[in-house]
Amino acid sequence: MQVFNVQGMTCGHCVRAVTNAIKNDDSAADVQIDLVKGQVRVQSVLAPEKVMGLIEQEGYGVQAV
Amino acid sequence: MQVFNVQGMTCGHCVRAVTNAIKNDDSAADVQIDLVKGQVRVQSVLAPEKVMGLIEQEGYGVQAV
Repeated sequence: MQVFNVQGMTCGHCVRAVTNAIKNDDSAADVQIDLVKGQVRVQSVLAPEKVMGLIEQEGYGVQAV
Repeated sequence: MQVFNVQGMTCGHCVRAVTNAIKNDDSAADVQIDLVKGQVRVQSVLAPEKVMGLIEQEGYGVQAV
């Protein structure tokens, strides 16, 4: 399980944008997002650096936990 | 010019969702959104009640100013 702190997610659209960005690259990925904590949990074959890049491309700040 | 107070818009996705919802019904509409004020200004042939309904369908609270 990969866990990231993500800055700037505010609403359901943001949840979908981040989820879809990851699932576009790994359709089997499991993506769970806690908007209040600003935390994204990902189960995926993608490298953590790749996942972080995808989240950044959506316009959010991201750090590995 | 129609002016509405809208609750719940938080980000660029919200701006696009509200803008597109109105432009889907009136492609010539001019939609200006101030996220900080929570205000939507619309120049459109649509009735204000119709515009308010479209905004509500996107999941936001709305009142005419």
